[in-house]
Parts: sequence; structure tokens; C-alpha cells
Amino acid sequence: MNDSLPTGFKASGTTCGIKESGTPDLSLFVSDVDCVAAGVYTTNRVVGAPVDVCRERTPSGGIRGIIINSGNANACTGETGDRDARQMTREVASALGCDENQVLVCSTGIIGVTLPMDKVSAGIPAAVESLSKQDGALNAAATAMMTTDTYAKTVSVRTQLSAGVCLVAGAAKGAAMIAPNMATMLGVVMTDANLTADQCDAILREAVDHTFNCITVDGHMSTSDTVLLLANGQSGTAVTETSDLATLTAAIREVCEKLATDIIRDAEGAEHFVTVDIRGLETRDQAVRIAREVSESALVKTAITGNDPNWGRITSAAGYAGIPFDPKFLSLQINGVTVYQSGNPVDYDEQTLSDNMGTGEVHLLLELSGGPASGDESARFWTSDLTQKYVRLNSEYTT
Amino acid sequence: MNDSLPTGFKASGTTCGIKESGTPDLSLFVSDVDCVAAGVYTTNRVVGAPVDVCRERTPSGGIRGIIINSGNANACTGETGDRDARQMTREVASALGCDENQVLVCSTGIIGVTLPMDKVSAGIPAAVESLSKQDGALNAAATAMMTTDTYAKTVSVRTQLSAGVCLVAGAAKGAAMIAPNMATMLGVVMTDANLTADQCDAILREAVDHTFNCITVDGHMSTSDTVLLLANGQSGTAVTETSDLATLTAAIREVCEKLATDIIRDAEGAEHFVTVDIRGLETRDQAVRIAREVSESALVKTAITGNDPNWGRITSAAGYAGIPFDPKFLSLQINGVTVYQSGNPVDYDEQTLSDNMGTGEVHLLLELSGGPASGDESARFWTSDLTQKYVRLNSEYTT
Repeated sequence: MNDSLPTGFKASGTTCGIKESGTPDLSLFVSDVDCVAAGVYTTNRVVGAPVDVCRERTPSGGIRGIIINSGNANACTGETGDRDARQMTREVASALGCDENQVLVCSTGIIGVTLPMDKVSAGIPAAVESLSKQDGALNAAATAMMTTDTYAKTVSVRTQLSAGVCLVAGAAKGAAMIAPNMATMLGVVMTDANLTADQCDAILREAVDHTFNCITVDGHMSTSDTVLLLANGQSGTAVTETSDLATLTAAIREVCEKLATDIIRDAEGAEHFVTVDIRGLETRDQAVRIAREVSESALVKTAITGNDPNWGRITSAAGYAGIPFDPKFLSLQINGVTVYQSGNPVDYDEQTLSDNMGTGEVHLLLELSGGPASGDESARFWTSDLTQKYVRLNSEYTT
Repeated sequence: MNDSLPTGFKASGTTCGIKESGTPDLSLFVSDVDCVAAGVYTTNRVVGAPVDVCRERTPSGGIRGIIINSGNANACTGETGDRDARQMTREVASALGCDENQVLVCSTGIIGVTLPMDKVSAGIPAAVESLSKQDGALNAAATAMMTTDTYAKTVSVRTQLSAGVCLVAGAAKGAAMIAPNMATMLGVVMTDANLTADQCDAILREAVDHTFNCITVDGHMSTSDTVLLLANGQSGTAVTETSDLATLTAAIREVCEKLATDIIRDAEGAEHFVTVDIRGLETRDQAVRIAREVSESALVKTAITGNDPNWGRITSAAGYAGIPFDPKFLSLQINGVTVYQSGNPVDYDEQTLSDNMGTGEVHLLLELSGGPASGDESARFWTSDLTQKYVRLNSEYTT
């Protein structure tokens, strides 16, 4: 059920031998017909060659497929990198019988090392051969995207429009990084809904802004982060009513949120899944900045690791986000328990709350309503805690 | 030698009983005559009451002393906090025979708990009684400021002006934080040079901007961070030449740098002392933003913990600082060894460099010269690595 591809899409996950481990490392997503397509990419100044190629080719009205390899990010590899990325799309296009500009490409894994193109080229025919629309194909493709992920991340959602049913499905891999690998966050979302290229682009940007852009493991933005949305219209369901677009937008956002939160649940060494809600700001941007500071604070994260409802670390992280607010109007709930109200700590049963945090699910709600610069805007972030295991994983010298 | 007070200054460090450990917790700095004084404070929106009181009283032409307690930050304590902070200054002023507005106050330690004013009040007479201008007094005062510091941080520098010699001395405590304490960074700098209030303010701001504002342990800004500069003119040495002001400025910056880097050397759980140099930007602000991202990256820090010369983590942290630069012009040296040149990794002896990093001193030099948006501006930051011990210290549940 979580693994159904939308009508007209096929996927495969195969092994071409980039990874020494011998695990799957080549993913392919293909539509029977041309798709409208949009992409959202890392804002890092240092990017992998595939990001440049995808940027050049999206938004588009004629994408047929996406080829993804794991095990090597094809980043910081100079002109060779650009040539290899284009060659991957050319070889897939040749097998599909389309133009190379109709194929997108992502790579994730070690950086600064030239892609073993002989292996990739040799593997592409098998990847095309293995394409399937059956249940299991999406999971196989998601598996071949994995680097440090411990499980494949997929989701499939049915959505009822006024004229019939559409499907939205996606696969993703996590953003955790282990030296010298630099594992990228990659997301592929497909739908058989009938969208224009402009709608596709707008919906993806909005969805990513509220999901993939609201997760943080360690604040380190990879050189290759990419989220792609393909819509092929093969459901045959027309998007007629204004409400249809809203329904589809919600479904695509739901798919992105499921994939994004799965990345956090699978974060390196994480023991707690943390949802951070910030409410009562004048603008969403202000709420996002506070949410980011709270989510990225090493002291907030380590307090959560210790099941410590440490209001001081949380409120002070909010205080240095650069947003002018009056602390007298600041209140904080942790897992539904008010621990700080209108600028002052309040009494509560600390042991019970700590035990509750020990379940591994933590919800922080910072409320700033009532002050002179407050408003109705809010933001939700998802993050993980910071454990000794995270430090161990990321400080082990692996060359 | 590192402990001499400037002419006309006295200091003491005593125990009033705030800390359960029974270690010193009350520091007093006093000048025989009125000082010009300046302060630089946390930009956190959530601040301790003493910060509000000091902000109100600086810059000034008539400060006589600074009273500091450790063990309790007098922060998030509502109106009681403001009343207690003012009472501390009033009681010191009464003992010195001056106005309460002539006394500054800092507090550091646990937040959200009312200050035990009975203990503080009872301790102030002994603090005044213990004031001394002898060597050892500055160290005693620095010791009584400590919270999680493992050693007292003091420095004393002699500086030659055209008309004679001046002394600049200082004491500081570290910025590391342990739950539920929120240990503040505090710095006190004193000089017997003859400055105007405006000069004092300008020199301190410039010095802090290049020293205390360029250190980061975990990016978490405390609610009470404060650096104060007092100048009493008791050296009798006139500041006549333009060069004298530059010489004094340099001496004050040297004192601030020594105290700031001592804080990093004593950071919680740190095994490496890291200097981060960013060169070749159009503006200092751009260089500072890149330096901060590199210094605060958990992945850069953990790579250093593992003695891993991981150019990928360092260059990509620079890449997401939001500064537009062309990665083709990015080069990186680690401890003098070029590992990345003009946008590409280069060959070097990795084992030798890793062994060198194992000495505990790491120097990162990121050079961006030559690109379209490059220039001559630079920034230097100091930071520590991120160890399993840091996580353990900060995740242990201590209530």
C-alpha cells in the first residue's frame, strides 16, 4: 500500500558496483510519457555536477526519467563531473528512446572522487531492463538511493479529486553525513495528476518550504540536496475545480512531509524525534528563524538526549534568533506540559515530564502571542537529538 | 606577572555561600577613583536582570566598581531579579562611599532561581574587606567568577606609550553551559590609562568584535554575556600622540584575545583548539559569516575530533554561509598543508597531516581570493571540537 507507483510510472533499483559493499546503487524512475517536472536544489555555493545539470533542465514540460546513483556524489570532480553526469542521462535517454535533455540525474556518496563511469554505463541497461510498475519497485529504487540510511523511505498516497482519483508517491534518502562521504538528501515525488509545468513548480516549492526545508539534523547543508516532482497526467483525472488543486497540493505536501520526517527518524545516532512548533509571530520567516535556532542548538539537542525539560536552553535559543520579541510574552510547552509562562518558569512535575520525553517523541511549542510584535504566523520544524553515538559516527577516521 | 592589577585597582574573590560546593562565588573589582567605563552585552532577547542594570549605567564617566556573583545568574526571575541586582550595587556603593549608579553588577550560574540575597548581602562586607592590589588578587577574583571553568582566566599586559607605561589587565570566565545552569561568558578589563568615555566605548566595541565575538563553543548565546572595560587614568601617563591610542587599543585587544582564546581552550570536553582564518572577501562581515558557519558546523568539529583533514565538510560549510562566491577560487590549508586548491582536492600526505592535527592545535585557512566577488577582507574565529564528552556533560540530567 505504501509502495504503489502512480499510473504510467515505473521504477527499478539495481547494483552496478560503485559501492564496495555490493549493495544496490543505481535507481531509475521512468514515466511512459512526457512529464511536467520541477526541482528544488541545495543553496550551497559548492554543488555537485548533477545539480547543475538538473537546474539547467527544470522546470520542464518533457521529462521522461531520473537516473540516480549512490556511493559517489560526483561532486568536486571538475569538468569530468559535468561530462559524466551528462553521459548518464544520455545513456538512459538512448535506452528509452528520448532526448538526453528529458532525463534528470542525481548522485550521492563520496565527494572529490571521479565517478566509475564504466560501472555506471555497464549498469544502465540492467536498470532499464528491471523497470517495473509493480508494488516493490518503488521500494527497490529507494533502497538503491541509500547511503547511511538504515531503511528505505517510500510513501504512496491516494487522493480524491472532483473527477476521480490520483496517486502521489515518493522516495527519499537521508541527509546524514559520514566522513569522507557526504550523504545528500534526495527526494523524488511522482504523480499521475494532470498539472501544468507552472503548477508543478509552484506546488513543489511550497511543499519543500514546509517539509524538506524544515528538517535539520546538524545544520550542515550538503552539496547535492535535490527534490524533484514529476507529473504525467496518466490518471486521466482532470484537475477541474479550484479545490482540486488545493487537494493535490495537500497530498504532495503530505508525501514530502512523510519522507522528510522519515529522514529525521533515521538520523545518525538519534534517540529522540523532535517536533518544534513556533507560533505567534508577525511573519512566517521570523517563526522559521526561531524554529531553526531551537532545532539546531547543540544544548537543546543534548538536553533532549538526557530527557531534560530544560526551558532555559530552549527559551534562550529562541532569544538569539535575531527576532525582536518581548520575552514577557514567551511561553513554552513540552509534550503538552507548560514549563514556562509569560516570561517566567512555572512549577510542574519534572520527573513525569522527563519520563514522558523518554518515549523518544518530544514536542516543543513556543508561543509568542500577545506582545507588541506578535501575530498569527507559525512554523514547524523537525529535528533529532545529539548523542554520543552521533559524535562517534562522525569523528571516526575512515580513510 | 600575568596577575598584576593596573595602578589604582583592587580586586577580591570570596565565598558567600551561593554555591553548594563552598567554592568562591563573589568577585569584586574596585578603582580608588572614578573610571570611564563601557560595556558590551549579549544580544539575546532573553537577558538576566544584571544586564539591564549595566546597560542602563554604561557608558559612564564615573564607575567605581563591579560586583559579580557566580552560582546563580539572576535571570528569568521577574521583578525580584531587578530589585536584587540593584540591591547588590547599593550595598557595594554604601561600603565604598559612592552612589549605587557607580557600581556595575554581573551574575552567572543557574537561571530561573531567585538569588539568595541574604547570603550575598552577608558576603559583601567580606568582599570589600578582602580587596587587595597585590598579585594574587586578580586571580582570586577570576576564581570566584568560575562556573564550569577548570581554571581561572587572567592576563596582565604592560604597554609603552610615548609618555610612559600603562597596564591593562583582565579576568574572564567561560561560556560553556551545563543543564540546568547556563554559564555565561563574563569579561572584566581594567586599565590605568587615561581615556575618555567615548574612547573607552569605541576601543571596547572594536576589541570585542575581533575577540569575544569571534569565539564559539556551541553557537548558543547566553542570556547574560557581558564584557566591561574600566579606565581610571591612575598610571599618570598621558595619551598624547595619535599612536598612543593605537598602542592602547592593541593592548586592550591583546588582553581580550588572551581571555577569549582561554575560554575556548577550556571549553567543555574539548580536545582540539581550532583557529579558523577566512581571507579574500569583499567585506569583513562576509568573512565573519563564513568563519561562523565553519566554526559552528557539527560535522567540521567532529572531523577535527577524529583528526580527519576533511576538506569536503569544511568547504561545504563555507558554501552554505549565504555568501556568493565562486567555488573555483576556493582553497583550503589545514595546519599549513594545502588540501584543496582552486575548487579541487589535491594530493597530500594524509597520515602526516592527521598526526599533526593530533597535537590538539588545528589551523584552518580558507582563501577566496581571485574570484569576481573577492577582496582583501578577512576574519579569524576560534573554536573547539565536538566530543562524546561534550555530549555526555550536556545531556546528563542534573536536577
